[in-house]
Amino acid sequence: MALIVQKYGGTSVANPERIKSLAARVARYKALGHQIVVVVSAMSGETNRLISLAKEIMPDPDPRELDVMVSTGEQVTIGMTALALMELGIKAKSYTGTQVKILTDNAHTKARILSIDEHNIKQDLDDGYVVVVAGFQGVDANGNITTLGRGGSDTTGVALAAALKADECQIYTDVDGVYTTDPRVVPEARRLNKITFEEMLELASQGSKVLQIRSVEFAGKYKVKLRVLSSFEEEGDGTLITFEEENTMEQPVISGIAFNRDEAKITVLGVPDKPGIAYQILGPIAEANVDVDMIIQNTGADGTTDFTFTVHKNEMNKALSILRDKVQGHIGAREISGDDKIAKVSIVGVGMRSHVGIASQMFRTLAEEGINIQMISTSEIKIAVVVDEKYLELAVRVLHKAFELEAA
Amino acid sequence: MALIVQKYGGTSVANPERIKSLAARVARYKALGHQIVVVVSAMSGETNRLISLAKEIMPDPDPRELDVMVSTGEQVTIGMTALALMELGIKAKSYTGTQVKILTDNAHTKARILSIDEHNIKQDLDDGYVVVVAGFQGVDANGNITTLGRGGSDTTGVALAAALKADECQIYTDVDGVYTTDPRVVPEARRLNKITFEEMLELASQGSKVLQIRSVEFAGKYKVKLRVLSSFEEEGDGTLITFEEENTMEQPVISGIAFNRDEAKITVLGVPDKPGIAYQILGPIAEANVDVDMIIQNTGADGTTDFTFTVHKNEMNKALSILRDKVQGHIGAREISGDDKIAKVSIVGVGMRSHVGIASQMFRTLAEEGINIQMISTSEIKIAVVVDEKYLELAVRVLHKAFELEAA
Repeated sequence: MALIVQKYGGTSVANPERIKSLAARVARYKALGHQIVVVVSAMSGETNRLISLAKEIMPDPDPRELDVMVSTGEQVTIGMTALALMELGIKAKSYTGTQVKILTDNAHTKARILSIDEHNIKQDLDDGYVVVVAGFQGVDANGNITTLGRGGSDTTGVALAAALKADECQIYTDVDGVYTTDPRVVPEARRLNKITFEEMLELASQGSKVLQIRSVEFAGKYKVKLRVLSSFEEEGDGTLITFEEENTMEQPVISGIAFNRDEAKITVLGVPDKPGIAYQILGPIAEANVDVDMIIQNTGADGTTDFTFTVHKNEMNKALSILRDKVQGHIGAREISGDDKIAKVSIVGVGMRSHVGIASQMFRTLAEEGINIQMISTSEIKIAVVVDEKYLELAVRVLHKAFELEAA
Repeated sequence: MALIVQKYGGTSVANPERIKSLAARVARYKALGHQIVVVVSAMSGETNRLISLAKEIMPDPDPRELDVMVSTGEQVTIGMTALALMELGIKAKSYTGTQVKILTDNAHTKARILSIDEHNIKQDLDDGYVVVVAGFQGVDANGNITTLGRGGSDTTGVALAAALKADECQIYTDVDGVYTTDPRVVPEARRLNKITFEEMLELASQGSKVLQIRSVEFAGKYKVKLRVLSSFEEEGDGTLITFEEENTMEQPVISGIAFNRDEAKITVLGVPDKPGIAYQILGPIAEANVDVDMIIQNTGADGTTDFTFTVHKNEMNKALSILRDKVQGHIGAREISGDDKIAKVSIVGVGMRSHVGIASQMFRTLAEEGINIQMISTSEIKIAVVVDEKYLELAVRVLHKAFELEAA
C-alpha cells in the first residue's frame, strides 16, 4: 500500500465527463489498496473567465479580491471530483486551501506555501477516504484567501506529497511526459523516461511548460518522487524525475532544450562602476515583487558599467518606471531601455559536467545560422542564451539536431 | 451617522453593470457618513448553474460537497462588489461566511446560524471600509462550508444587522416593497408603507416571496428594523417592517393575502386515539429534517383519529415512505395518503385581534365561489386555508376584493 498524491490539471477536469473519467482512474488506484490524495485545478477556461469578470469591474483588479474570485474555480472542481468518486461508491471528501489549511505568505496572486496542516487529511486517509484538495490556493495567517499564481496546482500537489510523506506525486498533464524539447517546434522531440531533478529544474525554469518551477523546487527540497503522466492515456509510465544521476557512459550530454518567449530585457547603460550598483538597481525591483531572471553586468573601459537583466514581459513597463523614477537619477545612469522582442533558449544536461566544449558547440551552431546572441548565462548543467524573438524556433531546431537529441 | 446593512439579491448582482450600479448606490450612502455592510447573493442563475453541474455528476448530490460548490456563487459576487466599490475610490473588503465567521449547525444545504463573530467587521468599519459579506453561507464547528438554503442571504443580512446592532437592515429586491398580495395574481394589489413584524412573519411563512421567513424571525428576535426596497428604483422608501402596532381606527383589518403552491398534504387515517400519536407520527418526520407546516387532528366517534399535515411538495414522497416504513404498523393506522395538488391561501392582519367575524367572512367569500376548504389553520392574526390548487388564483382575487385591500 502506497500513499500517492495525484494532481490533475485543467483539461483533466474540463467538464463533468472528464471528471468522471478522472474518478475512474482514481478508483483503479484505490482498488489496488493505495491511499490517494487528489489535487485538482479549475476547469479549463474557468480561471480566465473569473479574471475577465474581475477586469470588467476593475481593469487592474485588487489582488486580494481577485484571489477571492479566482479561488472559486478550484473550489467548484473539488466538489465535482468528490461527487464523481462518491458516485463510484468511493468515500471522498473535499478540502479548500483554507480548510486544509495550506498556510501561505500574503503575496496575493503569487503566494508561497509556508506550511501545510496534514492532520485532518491523514485522519481521513486512515478512515478510507480519498481526499480531494483544491490546488493553487491557500490562506494567509489572517485568514485571507491567497493563490499561488499560474501553475500553482503542481506546487500544491508536491507540497502535499512532502507534508504527507507520500510515496509518489503524480502530475497528470496533457502530454505523456517530459520531452527533449517542445514537439510543436521540433517534431522529432523525444520523451525522456527519466530526468534528474536538477535537469528538470533547469528545464522548468527555462520555460518548459510541463511542470511549474516551484513544484520542482519543492520536490527537490523534500525529495518527493515526481512523475509526469498523461491524463489522456491509460497506459505509460511517463517521465520519472529522479534524484540520482546514473553513472553510465550512455548518459547523454544534453537532456533537453527549453525556451521562453515571456521575458523582456532591460538595460541600464553607463552606470558609474561602484560597489553596490547591482543592489541599488535590483533592490527597488524586488521590493515591487517583480521577478528577475537573468542578470548580466559588463564593465567598460571608461569606468562605467552596463547592467542588463530580464523580467516577465508583463512587468517590463513597471520595472522601467521604477528604474526611471527611483533609480536612474540616484545612480547616475546614462540610459535605461527595454526590449520585449527577445526569446531565451537553454540547453540542459547533467552530462555537461563531464564534457567540455558544449558551450562553444552551442555558440557555433547558432552562429552558423546567423543568429546573434544578446545575453549568455550559464550554470553547471545549463547554458542559456537570449536571441532575437524571430529566431527562436530556428535556434531550437538546429540545437536539437546539433546535440543529436532525436537519436539519443 | 448610522450603521446600515444592505442586502442585494441575485438580479441586483446579475452582471458587472448591475454590480457597478449597486456600488454607486452604496457610495451615495457612504457619502452621507454612514457605515455600510453589504450582503450579496450569487449572480442570478449562478446557483442553479452550480447545482446542475453537481447533478450532472451525481443526480442526488452529497450535501456537503454541494455546499462547497454552491457557496462559490456568492464568493465570486463579493469579490466583484468589493472591486466595484474600490473602482469608485471607496475602501472595501470582502468576507466569505468562513472568514466572518458565520457559525452554523451542520445541516448542509439548510443550515441555521448559531453565532456571528462581528469583531473583524467592526474593526474594518471603524477603519472606514465598506464590508462586503457573502450571503447564504456559513461554516460549521468543524470548518465545513454550509449554506442556509434558498433565500438565506436575507437571513445573513438580518443576522449581521443583529450582531452589529445596525440601525437598519435594508433588503433590496426586484419589487419596491411588500404588497397586499402578489400583483401578478391581483393587479389591484397595493404596496404597504408599513407592516408589523408579526404580519410580515405570517405573510412570509405563508408563501410571500418578498422576504425569507427565517430572516423575518431573526429580525423579530433581535428587533432589527427591516426595510424592503427596490434595487431598480433610486427613490422610494419601500416597506418598513415595524415592531409597534399603530393604535388607530384606520388600521385595516387585513393587511395582506399570502399564498403558497409548494406544499403537499399528507393524511394518516384511522389512528387509534391515544396520547402520544402526534409525536409518534411527526417525530420520525422531524428526524429526517422534513419541515412540517400545518398540522390538524380530528377525533372521530369510533375511537380513532385522522391526522393531517403539510410538507414541501419535494418532500412528500420522502415523508410518505417514512410513515409507511416506520410508523404505520407501529401506530396501527388504517391508511396513509398524500396529495400534492393543493394550495394554501392565508389572510393576515393585526386588525383581526379587534374584529370579529373575519373567519366567517373569509369562508363565506370562498363558499360563494364554490371553493371547498380542505384544511383550516388559524393564529391570532392569520387564517389559512388549504384548497384545491386549481382554485388558488380565484380564491386570492375574491378575498382581496372582499376585504377591500385595493382601496385601503
